[in-house]
Amino acid sequence: MAANNGLELWVYDVHKDVSSLGLKIVKTLFSGKSRFQQVDVVESKGLGRVLLNDGLFMLSEADEFIYHEMIAHVPLFVHPCPERVLIIGGGDGGTAREVLKHPQIRRVVMVEIDEMVVNASREYLPSLSCAFDDPRLEIRIEDGIRYMAETKEHFDIILVDSTDPVGPAAPLFDAEFYRNAARVLSSEGILISQAESPFYDQDIQRSMFANQRLFFKKLHLYLFANMTYPGGLWGFGFASKELCPIRNFDAERVRSSEIKFRYYNENIHSAAFILPTFLFESLKDILDSDNALPES
Amino acid sequence: MAANNGLELWVYDVHKDVSSLGLKIVKTLFSGKSRFQQVDVVESKGLGRVLLNDGLFMLSEADEFIYHEMIAHVPLFVHPCPERVLIIGGGDGGTAREVLKHPQIRRVVMVEIDEMVVNASREYLPSLSCAFDDPRLEIRIEDGIRYMAETKEHFDIILVDSTDPVGPAAPLFDAEFYRNAARVLSSEGILISQAESPFYDQDIQRSMFANQRLFFKKLHLYLFANMTYPGGLWGFGFASKELCPIRNFDAERVRSSEIKFRYYNENIHSAAFILPTFLFESLKDILDSDNALPES
Repeated sequence: MAANNGLELWVYDVHKDVSSLGLKIVKTLFSGKSRFQQVDVVESKGLGRVLLNDGLFMLSEADEFIYHEMIAHVPLFVHPCPERVLIIGGGDGGTAREVLKHPQIRRVVMVEIDEMVVNASREYLPSLSCAFDDPRLEIRIEDGIRYMAETKEHFDIILVDSTDPVGPAAPLFDAEFYRNAARVLSSEGILISQAESPFYDQDIQRSMFANQRLFFKKLHLYLFANMTYPGGLWGFGFASKELCPIRNFDAERVRSSEIKFRYYNENIHSAAFILPTFLFESLKDILDSDNALPES
Repeated sequence: MAANNGLELWVYDVHKDVSSLGLKIVKTLFSGKSRFQQVDVVESKGLGRVLLNDGLFMLSEADEFIYHEMIAHVPLFVHPCPERVLIIGGGDGGTAREVLKHPQIRRVVMVEIDEMVVNASREYLPSLSCAFDDPRLEIRIEDGIRYMAETKEHFDIILVDSTDPVGPAAPLFDAEFYRNAARVLSSEGILISQAESPFYDQDIQRSMFANQRLFFKKLHLYLFANMTYPGGLWGFGFASKELCPIRNFDAERVRSSEIKFRYYNENIHSAAFILPTFLFESLKDILDSDNALPES
């Protein structure tokens, strides 16, 4: 455990060789190298503990609630009766934690390729991994792409809580993965995909949606703000065979829910699907979004 | 003009000694020290030209359209008949450029304390300063606080396009400034204030709204995403004696406008006033926002 003995320590996450986000670090809590990546947990000065994979910020304790509430609650309040959720990646546990807040959930399978992330989170990120011992959760340490191709199980919702489309996560953005996701999902199923930056990664977003379009009729992009990802604004893809995230959204279920949200609420749900003009224009040929607010 | 002769040059904007945003720089175009601050314009590798005051990022050519569209068009489509606009600060010209896109505008007064910013923008940021020669625009190089205290003119909209509340901009967040703003505004007048980061600066936001509350009945916060400000999410305060930014918003005027928006649109207008739960809870005692979406 390396402590800061008077030196100023900063970690910089450099994006595309044009911008970088730096965080001041108090000390390193964990540092390891798995078969897949470098994994670090550090104590930052301002944003609590921070998880890094291969030197890229994955989450901070200060703002992880935004990402994890938005990946989980948006589809969970659109699907009429979600009981079975598959998480691909998500080894830190934040996504499983939010999913398991819904009392009607019966089974969650979390397929994380890198056991080191799960173990580091269990040890050093207890506010993320706090649901790891929920009896409804099965943690499988294996390749999510192979799991998706081989499983005979069916799910209501699939959450792709992945890193960027480089290295082991790259096939998670391929058509073959989405074909298998469509097979595994029930007819009212929903696939949520981590969809990168609207500012920096519109090429990745277009490619992802083009591949999803082959197997899903309903495609939408929704946005959230984030302190630790480049550009501040970030997206999730919403793909479904039948369900529209606006028309099939049950705001009353949110209002009567006993879950204590910190970012999400019934109005954020709908507002998140409103796209800025530049993004709407660039993606409208591939999305279903009409960029219109629903009637309240 | 310093060119990059093989060295990697980066500029870092450090926020509260906890985080920093870095941009890779190709070359410095302008560097000067005025009576008020250090002013630099640099060519960045990924975000076009960038203006810095005292080493802090003020804008980049890549994303300035977001800030400037949101400060200008939101109040201009709420006020029923905006003709006279006062801009405090805004020396780069981006705010005046957006305001002057509205054909009904008859007079814009831009009061910038630092002539060096105006001149640097005219020379090195032509896409920002392109409206400086519009005959409807009067540029005054003087202290905006004193101007506001002394002017006999009345305005429909005041846009406080200021830096952070330190140094010369600090009094722009004081009650005395808002008292004068209320006097200068017509009865349907609107005051928009740069309102810092919802993540990092809730104390500043509370203090700003508490001071505005003394003179304005209607107070709202609206949000936008930004690539160059710390935390990614940023806010503007909307203060008015009478007008509600949702109920008095005329979406049809946006739809029939001939302005080419890049970020703003009629749905972004309403979605921007939807606050995340943590922010709504922290500010609801001081704001009018009911955090509810309007009927579309």
